[in-house]
Order: sequence, then C-alpha cells, then structure tokens
Amino acid sequence: MDPNTVLIGQKPVMNYVLAGLTLIQNGSDSVSLKARGRAISKAVDVAQIITKRFATEIDIKNIEINTEVVESRETGKPSNVSSIEIQLGK
Amino acid sequence: MDPNTVLIGQKPVMNYVLAGLTLIQNGSDSVSLKARGRAISKAVDVAQIITKRFATEIDIKNIEINTEVVESRETGKPSNVSSIEIQLGK
Repeated sequence: MDPNTVLIGQKPVMNYVLAGLTLIQNGSDSVSLKARGRAISKAVDVAQIITKRFATEIDIKNIEINTEVVESRETGKPSNVSSIEIQLGK
Repeated sequence: MDPNTVLIGQKPVMNYVLAGLTLIQNGSDSVSLKARGRAISKAVDVAQIITKRFATEIDIKNIEINTEVVESRETGKPSNVSSIEIQLGK
C-alpha cells in the first residue's frame, strides 16, 4: 500500500484525522484517504475536518468511487462493496 | 430543489436506484445524488448500482463533498455534518 494512504476503518474519526495530519506534517505533498462500505461517510468527515479545520492549505484534489468484490466473512461468498478514495494535497 | 436531484435518506438502496433510473428514463441528461452523514455510503452504493448494473451508458461526472451546519433535533444546537453530491450523466 502507498505509504501516504490512510485506510479508514472502525476507529474514532479523530484517529484518522491525526494520521492524515501526521503524514502532511512529515512532508507528504498528498495524502489519500480510502474507505469501504459504511466507513465511506467517515472518510468524508476526515477529509472535511483536515481541510477545513486543521490544514486549510490542504485541498481536496480528487474523489473516486468504485466497487470492490470482497468475500463475506460468514458465508465465504463474494459480494460487492462500494469504496471511496479521497486525494488531499497542497 | 433541482427536480433532477435524488435525496438519499433512510429508505432501502433500491428505492433510490429506482428513483434515479426513473429520472434518466424520463429524459434527464443528468441526475444528482445528494446525501448527508451516514447516508453518504448509501449514495455511493446508489451511484455504483446505477452506473455499473442498470445504466452503463451513464457515468459519474463529478463528486463533491462539503460540510453543512444542521440544528440538532434534540438540543437545538448547530452541528457540522458532512455531505456528498454525486453527479451522474451521459
């Protein structure tokens, strides 16, 4: 995985905000936020909090949505899940 | 509200897919999917199902995310909520 990627999961929003800000403060010109399924809303929150509250020199450069096939943990059957990738940069 | 807008809320995903497809079949060249908060993930699902499964001639033209201020239903205090707008078109 790209070292400038923050994978958004089930932790609190501020964990991911901090992870993104740390990447930026360590000199990354761009940070990619990735999420799947219900974490997509949280990825949008993280992007908004980083760009509007903490690092106003950072903008949203690109947003892509996609569909990924994942195997169900219970049944082992493949199922479709939506994903988002939000690119932040200077 | 723009008549070509589908506002995504708490109903099942397929309700919104059908609403979007109906707009397209009635001659709309573009459809806008809007959602706030936790419904954002559902808006992404709706966009993916419309463009990949049912109306492959329709593409995602633009995605914007934003922050809106809403009044809490319980306390009446203003709070920030993320929003998404996904533009679909031919």
